[in-house]
Amino acid sequence: MYRPQNLRIPGPTVVPQAVLAASARPMINHRGPEFAALLAALTRALQDFLRTQGDVLTLTASGSGAMEAAIANTLSRGDKVLVFINGAFGERFYAICKAYGVEARRIDVTLGRAVEPDLVRDELAKEKGRDGAKAVLIQHNETSTGVLNPLKEISEVVRDSGKLFIVDSVSGAGAAELEIDEWGIDVCMTASQKAWGAPPGVSIVTMSERAWKFYEKSDLPKSYFDLAAAKAALEKGSTPATPAVSVYIALQEALRLMAEEGLEAILRRHLNLARATRRGLQALNLPLFADEAHASPAVTAFRPPTRVDARNLIRVLRDDYDTIVAGGQGKLDGQLVRVGHLGFVTLQDILNFFSALELALRDFNQPIEPGQAIAAALRAYAESAPQPTRSGARGGARPDTVGSRR
Amino acid sequence: MYRPQNLRIPGPTVVPQAVLAASARPMINHRGPEFAALLAALTRALQDFLRTQGDVLTLTASGSGAMEAAIANTLSRGDKVLVFINGAFGERFYAICKAYGVEARRIDVTLGRAVEPDLVRDELAKEKGRDGAKAVLIQHNETSTGVLNPLKEISEVVRDSGKLFIVDSVSGAGAAELEIDEWGIDVCMTASQKAWGAPPGVSIVTMSERAWKFYEKSDLPKSYFDLAAAKAALEKGSTPATPAVSVYIALQEALRLMAEEGLEAILRRHLNLARATRRGLQALNLPLFADEAHASPAVTAFRPPTRVDARNLIRVLRDDYDTIVAGGQGKLDGQLVRVGHLGFVTLQDILNFFSALELALRDFNQPIEPGQAIAAALRAYAESAPQPTRSGARGGARPDTVGSRR
Repeated sequence: MYRPQNLRIPGPTVVPQAVLAASARPMINHRGPEFAALLAALTRALQDFLRTQGDVLTLTASGSGAMEAAIANTLSRGDKVLVFINGAFGERFYAICKAYGVEARRIDVTLGRAVEPDLVRDELAKEKGRDGAKAVLIQHNETSTGVLNPLKEISEVVRDSGKLFIVDSVSGAGAAELEIDEWGIDVCMTASQKAWGAPPGVSIVTMSERAWKFYEKSDLPKSYFDLAAAKAALEKGSTPATPAVSVYIALQEALRLMAEEGLEAILRRHLNLARATRRGLQALNLPLFADEAHASPAVTAFRPPTRVDARNLIRVLRDDYDTIVAGGQGKLDGQLVRVGHLGFVTLQDILNFFSALELALRDFNQPIEPGQAIAAALRAYAESAPQPTRSGARGGARPDTVGSRR
Repeated sequence: MYRPQNLRIPGPTVVPQAVLAASARPMINHRGPEFAALLAALTRALQDFLRTQGDVLTLTASGSGAMEAAIANTLSRGDKVLVFINGAFGERFYAICKAYGVEARRIDVTLGRAVEPDLVRDELAKEKGRDGAKAVLIQHNETSTGVLNPLKEISEVVRDSGKLFIVDSVSGAGAAELEIDEWGIDVCMTASQKAWGAPPGVSIVTMSERAWKFYEKSDLPKSYFDLAAAKAALEKGSTPATPAVSVYIALQEALRLMAEEGLEAILRRHLNLARATRRGLQALNLPLFADEAHASPAVTAFRPPTRVDARNLIRVLRDDYDTIVAGGQGKLDGQLVRVGHLGFVTLQDILNFFSALELALRDFNQPIEPGQAIAAALRAYAESAPQPTRSGARGGARPDTVGSRR
């Protein structure tokens, strides 16, 4: 039966038709000139989008593999580090440190709140001197709670401390402002299936010059995730092990679509659609989980109405309305609904989500007036989005231009 | 310009059109019921093909990642192991051991020769007692030289020793006979882009009950490659980190095609096409690199004619005849040409390869009579392959039935 889904989880995200088609091209030699050219072009495009002149290395692995690579390539057994945790992915950083024998001190922040620069400053003040922590690990966008940490302000504090700055921007990069070089981020990671709109399978790690100095001293075991090997291979147009060729091809096509839209327009589209999502949810009196001041442009978490179980709501949305959203992760399992609005997402996707949500809530006997969330979302969007003009439509400045290419 | 390639490297292999199309289906939720069903079915199919009732775990990584997982999940720092090396992938096992602080004793075998069971017996005799090696690591099919080690006979020797038996069958499984349970292989690995005919990005590791006992004692750091986490997630229909969804879907479709052909017919097809390849090369007086008694059913390595540079020959085959073969790896760089005949390969692919090779050699002023290799390959094939009959054609018993589905 033809039942297209509205895939509204915070990754894997919708893959546009052009990108799917690219991923299905006949297989090529991963050691030949075609792949070498692809890898070089893809690396340059990623440098542009990540705003870095430093090394951008790709791994055939998901974002968690890239998080592990960041740690294994820069730290040593017994090293002290600070891990700021405001969600499940902060926990993951902590768990990887533990697995590798890195002494991580965890600083927990209330879930749904951001890591504040002042907190980082206070904690770093305790870590001065030779016995202090060597590195700071933090999420840019905490996917599990829908919180965007104020990375620009935090980076100023970390830069003053001289610590190595490791940032998980797996779900942030390409959806939220990120200036890797300007903000002094030493190691940053993201993954193909998030804002980049390609299938999962390729993750991306950036390394600053300072990060390579840490690499030289790092004694943690690394082979598949050895970033120096990745860099050496990249310089020869290749990868140390067989890459996920079809995902690389897809990612290149996705980056081409993104370049047509332009980074600035992409970020604005994310902000506008995130705001429209929050206003729609508020019109349904659904409590937003994240602090509004630090609401993520990539994903919004909300609580279901009292007496409606989050898992049931998610199931009804899926089974009856073909709308796929995520639940809470870790400690928040069963408490939250998370709707993704990152990558190749359009206003129509958000309105379709609300049409499903309104109907599903009525199935749970909630007093919903059909259209009330849609109207609020549309209103918020109309207030924020630039009006499409004839010239805008031609110039590719319309925020939803990319969506129409699916 | 329309210039279809004859992809004849030993992986990534040709991906049939049906598999490419499957990989381009719209993205789905990696935490939803569709993916859970896919993962369960895929795992069962892999158990069938790998001839094991033990755990079959999948990783979003290439085969090298699976090799690392095998080591990191069963061994500890300072453990002694024996690594038999007859090519570049034996070297890789050795390098991973070294990176993890595992004390590997290397036993080098002349390149192009197989690891003989007697050698394994002699070396194991030196490893008795508490101070002896804990594990034996070996390749099933050494991709870099085109040698198939006599794994069945070796496994008998290793089983008698009681050591943990870790086998890299990345390019062997699905192309050569492999009986994981019957032969007592504790940890075995393969990868989606080899005989399985799917794009690269997913690797597969099997774990015996005994391997899990080693897991309990292993102190090597593991997080992304933690196989207990993979097993726990699999039991819930999921993976610890985001899987390469589109490659999983492709792999399932490839396994469906393989099941139609049947494992026995697949292995026979590989043997027949490998023999036809060797006979064709011999008809051109090109020296085969591997010992004929241990010639690989997956890949054949040969030396170019005297005064013809291997790299030049490979380049001419690629640029002028759209035929993509591999060169030598590691120490054999520049000395060999390797032609892959694993996965969804048909007699036509092999004959097309020879048509290109004959013409390319003539370009190098070699005294080649057009058709001489093709005739020899066809003759060898006719002698070995079962005659297609009307009933055979319907029953799917023809060795090249699968190829026609591309």
